[in-house]
Amino acid sequence: MTKQQSRRAFIKNAGLGSLLGGLSTLSHPVWSNTKELDLPETMTKPGDDFSNYGSPSEHEQAVIRWVSSNSSAPGNGVSWSPLHDLHGTITPNGLHYERHHNGVPNIDPATHQLLIDGLVEKPLIFDIKSLLRYPMESRTCFIECGGNSNNGWRSNPIQTQAGYAHGLVSNAEWTGVPLKLLLEEAGLKPNAKWIIAEAADGSSLNVSIPVEKLMDDALLALYQNGERIRPENGYPLRLVVPGWEGIVNVKWLRQLRLTDQPAMTRDETAQYTELLPSGKAEQFSFIMEAKSLITTPSLGMMLPEHGVYQISGLAWSGRGKISRVEISIDGGDTWVDADIQQPVLSKAFTRFNLPWKWQGEYAVIQSRATDETGYVQPSRDRLISNRGKHGFFHYNAIVSWEITEEGDINHVYGL
Amino acid sequence: MTKQQSRRAFIKNAGLGSLLGGLSTLSHPVWSNTKELDLPETMTKPGDDFSNYGSPSEHEQAVIRWVSSNSSAPGNGVSWSPLHDLHGTITPNGLHYERHHNGVPNIDPATHQLLIDGLVEKPLIFDIKSLLRYPMESRTCFIECGGNSNNGWRSNPIQTQAGYAHGLVSNAEWTGVPLKLLLEEAGLKPNAKWIIAEAADGSSLNVSIPVEKLMDDALLALYQNGERIRPENGYPLRLVVPGWEGIVNVKWLRQLRLTDQPAMTRDETAQYTELLPSGKAEQFSFIMEAKSLITTPSLGMMLPEHGVYQISGLAWSGRGKISRVEISIDGGDTWVDADIQQPVLSKAFTRFNLPWKWQGEYAVIQSRATDETGYVQPSRDRLISNRGKHGFFHYNAIVSWEITEEGDINHVYGL
Repeated sequence: MTKQQSRRAFIKNAGLGSLLGGLSTLSHPVWSNTKELDLPETMTKPGDDFSNYGSPSEHEQAVIRWVSSNSSAPGNGVSWSPLHDLHGTITPNGLHYERHHNGVPNIDPATHQLLIDGLVEKPLIFDIKSLLRYPMESRTCFIECGGNSNNGWRSNPIQTQAGYAHGLVSNAEWTGVPLKLLLEEAGLKPNAKWIIAEAADGSSLNVSIPVEKLMDDALLALYQNGERIRPENGYPLRLVVPGWEGIVNVKWLRQLRLTDQPAMTRDETAQYTELLPSGKAEQFSFIMEAKSLITTPSLGMMLPEHGVYQISGLAWSGRGKISRVEISIDGGDTWVDADIQQPVLSKAFTRFNLPWKWQGEYAVIQSRATDETGYVQPSRDRLISNRGKHGFFHYNAIVSWEITEEGDINHVYGL
Repeated sequence: MTKQQSRRAFIKNAGLGSLLGGLSTLSHPVWSNTKELDLPETMTKPGDDFSNYGSPSEHEQAVIRWVSSNSSAPGNGVSWSPLHDLHGTITPNGLHYERHHNGVPNIDPATHQLLIDGLVEKPLIFDIKSLLRYPMESRTCFIECGGNSNNGWRSNPIQTQAGYAHGLVSNAEWTGVPLKLLLEEAGLKPNAKWIIAEAADGSSLNVSIPVEKLMDDALLALYQNGERIRPENGYPLRLVVPGWEGIVNVKWLRQLRLTDQPAMTRDETAQYTELLPSGKAEQFSFIMEAKSLITTPSLGMMLPEHGVYQISGLAWSGRGKISRVEISIDGGDTWVDADIQQPVLSKAFTRFNLPWKWQGEYAVIQSRATDETGYVQPSRDRLISNRGKHGFFHYNAIVSWEITEEGDINHVYGL
């Protein structure tokens, strides 16, 4: 058997002659064709009324963002998307991850303004009403905090559910005005190479971003999954910079100042820089590299019986489309290609799936993403050999879930 | 000038040399490069705290589903998606349209069961937990009530906002088990040609659906835009039948009975049939034909000044992909192609856009969708000449918005 097994061999090895044959091993009763189901109580009475704006079922109250904030500064912290409880590729707006530096400002769209100034021919000021009249585009893309998954740098693997260890990333359809249109209207001076983007929150968050990227595919987003952006995601106006780390996707955007060099703000010097083994720090490491995560089965679930399970998860890359996701059930010795859910969009969540027949053997399941540039998600060992043991941001190593012979699931560090 | 104008001619006629040239006519102040914006109050204090599950901004409280239910039977009626307030293509879960016959049942997923019986080799019963272990697929598609837009049959055009006249249609990413897998597991007998699908609601809603379609692309949906289906959309289990009228997308699904003929239930005989000019009624008219709607500018908005406006809207077809959307500003005399937002998905909302420079002239704006089968959305006259004046379901004629010289917007009937 070569290291790279075929999908057919994988399934055969797994004792699964065919997918459908395997499914018949799932335990659900065969029913008498002459018997009716008992009439549920819900069929004996009228149901609840219509609603102007809906909510999840009361039976799904455990599906939440998990908040991890600074107790002495409650508005500084994160909340995690429960990726282990979700399926498909869209993150619903109520569960999109949060990262705030000083809480969520309550901004009145009637008075909010955006200023574009600095190295431009004609500084411009916009209110939300005027932006709503501009041509808009939609773009489904992920936004990921540069610090997502940084528990991976710890010596011991954290025993936390998939979303609460890796869910500082979410995926939504953003709709807004291509920033290129407004920059061209303002007129860039030849030496305008950077933009200092500033938020209207209590931390006055500001960051420096190369103009070239913003002219390429940045959006001034006004809508998130169809409706106006949620307060915690930047209402009324967010800069969306597809594929680049969360911090530059500035929420509550109020100012874009064109400059000839970066401003060296707090969040690109003291924070969001990456200590390298050499002792030097890498700055402006904007692109989120290819990454993947098995969301089911994953820690917090268990395999209740021998039989067929669907291995399913998410892959994404800040450089473009995901071209391949491989699965291993033996800790990385052998790999087979997963099915990729269509359509595959650039810089967006891609769902992968592979059926697996588990017969009680010890297993370490992993996923490995490759993007259209050929970049392959690294093992943890490889990541650490490149980046050292003291990193914090941009952790994108392969995640390993151990399945015990009892069907319990633990987080382990693979090779 | 031919009837079919080029896009270039359209824009030139509209006095718009280039899009960007046109945009500079939008009124927003040029700013002094040495002046700063006033510091908003939100930058002087911490913001609100994190939340486990988010909500829209308090400034968006007017963006709601509009409920229209039977006062003597409150659980019977509809609520409309506010399509005129939305942008992009996804309908957020809180605003997906509702159609209930007897309210929203509160179903406990721990006890809910699905029975597949009738003309099968092996009747099967599933609970939600077992379904969650099956291979799943995601499918972004619209669901549209067969009665959507039926105000169009009235003698006079209804003066209602776009979503509240045409918003019994919504678009979501549905994720679930392909029904084909379960039907193959149960084993269809040769004479199994129809499925009677039954809901666990107070109306015991049931409908007959051809097996062939369900084997093709139906999903047993468990997730809607990433999270578990909302109660009003069928929690915990909905049959999603892409492109077919809403009534067959059975919510709160509890039973699929295989038969050799339709059951002739109330909702496919007394209701959801279509009276034709001949006096006969058309039954089992499942497919929702191509349709489109300009959502902005539309009734309830106005054009506050002369200048550039983005005409934008939605198109969809139950037969496949939208291949073309044309716009007219002169009541259908001349047409130009709109821009189609990518990616275009089959049986899903497709967003179209076209900039338009309005200089105070009287205009009647319309959109006309064509799908990949070559089907062209009909004018109202054509629809009525085919279907008569007394229709109720499947109204898909071109919608016309009149723009007065003052910039007011009214609904009118075009030719």
